[in-house]
This record gives sequence, C-alpha cells and structure tokens, in this order.
Amino acid sequence: MGFVNITPEVELVVSESAVREGLVLVNAMHITASVFINDDEPGLHRDYKRWLEQLAPFDASPDRYQHNRTGEDNADAHMKRQIMGREVVVAITAGKLDFGPWEQIFYGEFDGKRAKRVLVKVIGE
Amino acid sequence: MGFVNITPEVELVVSESAVREGLVLVNAMHITASVFINDDEPGLHRDYKRWLEQLAPFDASPDRYQHNRTGEDNADAHMKRQIMGREVVVAITAGKLDFGPWEQIFYGEFDGKRAKRVLVKVIGE
Amino acid sequence: MGFVNITPEVELVVSESAVREGLVLVNAMHITASVFINDDEPGLHRDYKRWLEQLAPFDASPDRYQHNRTGEDNADAHMKRQIMGREVVVAITAGKLDFGPWEQIFYGEFDGKRAKRVLVKVIGE
Repeated sequence: MGFVNITPEVELVVSESAVREGLVLVNAMHITASVFINDDEPGLHRDYKRWLEQLAPFDASPDRYQHNRTGEDNADAHMKRQIMGREVVVAITAGKLDFGPWEQIFYGEFDGKRAKRVLVKVIGE
Repeated sequence: MGFVNITPEVELVVSESAVREGLVLVNAMHITASVFINDDEPGLHRDYKRWLEQLAPFDASPDRYQHNRTGEDNADAHMKRQIMGREVVVAITAGKLDFGPWEQIFYGEFDGKRAKRVLVKVIGE
Repeated sequence: MGFVNITPEVELVVSESAVREGLVLVNAMHITASVFINDDEPGLHRDYKRWLEQLAPFDASPDRYQHNRTGEDNADAHMKRQIMGREVVVAITAGKLDFGPWEQIFYGEFDGKRAKRVLVKVIGE
C-alpha cells in the first residue's frame, strides 16, 4: 500500500493542454487503486493505511473474501479503493488547478504489483 | 442488494452522442443507490455485499437509525451508497470509453424496490 | 460536525451561468470537509454523524492517529471526508440541475473551525 503525490504531473498536463477554463478528470485505471485529494502529510498517510486495514483487512485466504477463490489475493484492495474513490474532478480556472489550501492529488495503490497508469483528461477552452 | 453491469448501455449512449473527445457522467438518480466502477466478478460482488452489510447493517427498527422513525426502513442503504459512491465520470477518447483493464460500470441497488433510473450525460465534441 | 444544504446556491450559479447543457462540479475546498448528495432528512443526518463517528472516531490524542502529532486534532475528519467524498458532478439539462427525486447537495463539515469555501464550476453551452 502506498500513496504517490501526482499533482505536478497533473499540473503539467493541464498546462500543456492550454485550457484556461474547464475540468480535469484524474482516475486510476486499475480497480484496486485510487486517485484522491487530501493533505501531503506522512502521518496522515500512515493513518489512512492503518484505518483502511481495519475497515478491509488483507486476507489472502478464500474464507473471508470469495474473490480470492479465483486465485487472486487482493479482494481487500477492491474494498479499500471504494473507500478512497476511483477518481477526482478538479476545476481549471485561469489555466491552473483551482485548489483549496492543502489540496494535493494522490495515486493510492492497494495491491502493489505491476506497472500502473493514471488517466488525465482535460476538457474546456 | 444487487449490482447490474450497465457498461453496454453507457457505451451505446456515448456512441449515439457522436462525441469523440469528452467526458461522460453516469449517476444514480436515487439516494439509496450507487454507480461505481469495478470488476465484473461474482465472488467480488458477494464480498462487497457482505462487507457493506458489516459496515452499515440493515436494521428496520428505529433504534439504530433515526431515519427509520420516518416510516422508512432503508437508512442502511443511504450509508452503503456513500461508501460505493453516487457517480462516476469516465473519459471519452476517440469516441470510446477510456477504460483501464477490467473496468466496468455497475448500478448498485441497496433498497430493492421501485423502478430505478440512471442518468448518463455526455459532454465534449 | 454539520451538514448544510447548498442546493439553492448551486442552482443560482447554474442559472447565472446561462449554461443549458453541461456539467457542474461542486467540491469542498477543505480536506476535512465534503460535498455530497443525499436526502434532506434530519434523522438521516444524525445517523450519518453517528455512523461516521463509529467508522472514524474523533481522538485528539496522537496515539490513535499519527497526524495528530503535528499539533492537529482532526485526523478523524480526514477519514470521514473520504467516506462522504470530496465532490459531486451533476448534469445540467435545459438549464437546470438534472436531479432524481430527493437529491439535494450538502456541504459536510467534520472539523468545525474557520470560514469555509465551496467551489462551483459550470461547463457546457
């Protein structure tokens, strides 16, 4: 489980799009991952990990999670992702992400395998 | 409680819109229901149902949930819907839903009564 | 913790935008707050507060939440906000919010301090 601040990458895409007024969608392309907005504070991130583990504990056995009868061991990651969400939509105003104080965009990984992709889609003018 | 894969219906709306680049919003029009994106795997869906029942148990009595003092018995469904989310926003690229592997759109019903409606809104060009 | 119905304010922004077909994004600009759509029923709101307190209890001590070692006492509010969500996206059809029955937009505050701001962004034509 890990969280990566992807705000600079999203800002770059928005900047290169030349869109001044619009929306940007940022979503995980993986169903055991999340894109969310919150604070970039390491203690908080440790709190999230511990809290998510309480709400949806990792358990590779097929007893707790039927999904793990398919040969997967990541059913808990599908739960954690629903809590944290798949996507965020952020306003673009005057060419920039229209953020409140402390807002940062994170990619959240709950099943740490394979290379991962995030989709960033800008619309507007 | 039940989950219905509505991906084909959303794809049809996107196709008929002739939008090539844009966004599609898909949301439940009911406050005890959800639209979410995850895997179309029956064991996982059973896991979600069991997990949501643990986080927000059905209880028609007015003791656990004050909402059920209004004559309703579905307060738990309002909780389950917040976990799973009201809506998804998906990118449209080259006229198609821009999905990662395994992403499918589901309508989730937590209070199985009455006919239900989903809103699909396409914007772009 | 408190929930404020902001639907009239959002309707006003949509009306003044003169957009007839499009989307409106409504998001909290604070990372311990939420914008969500549900029913305007006081019993349900009390249920949400009690339920969120069970899932992520307030605890100002640094023992339960490492975030509170920074001098903050609101780690629980960051958890509650993830359950309830940061934002909603609503369709605009024929110049109006395209709502199902009972849908109302709320600002949810989980750390009741300071003046608060909500962002409303309308796109479309």
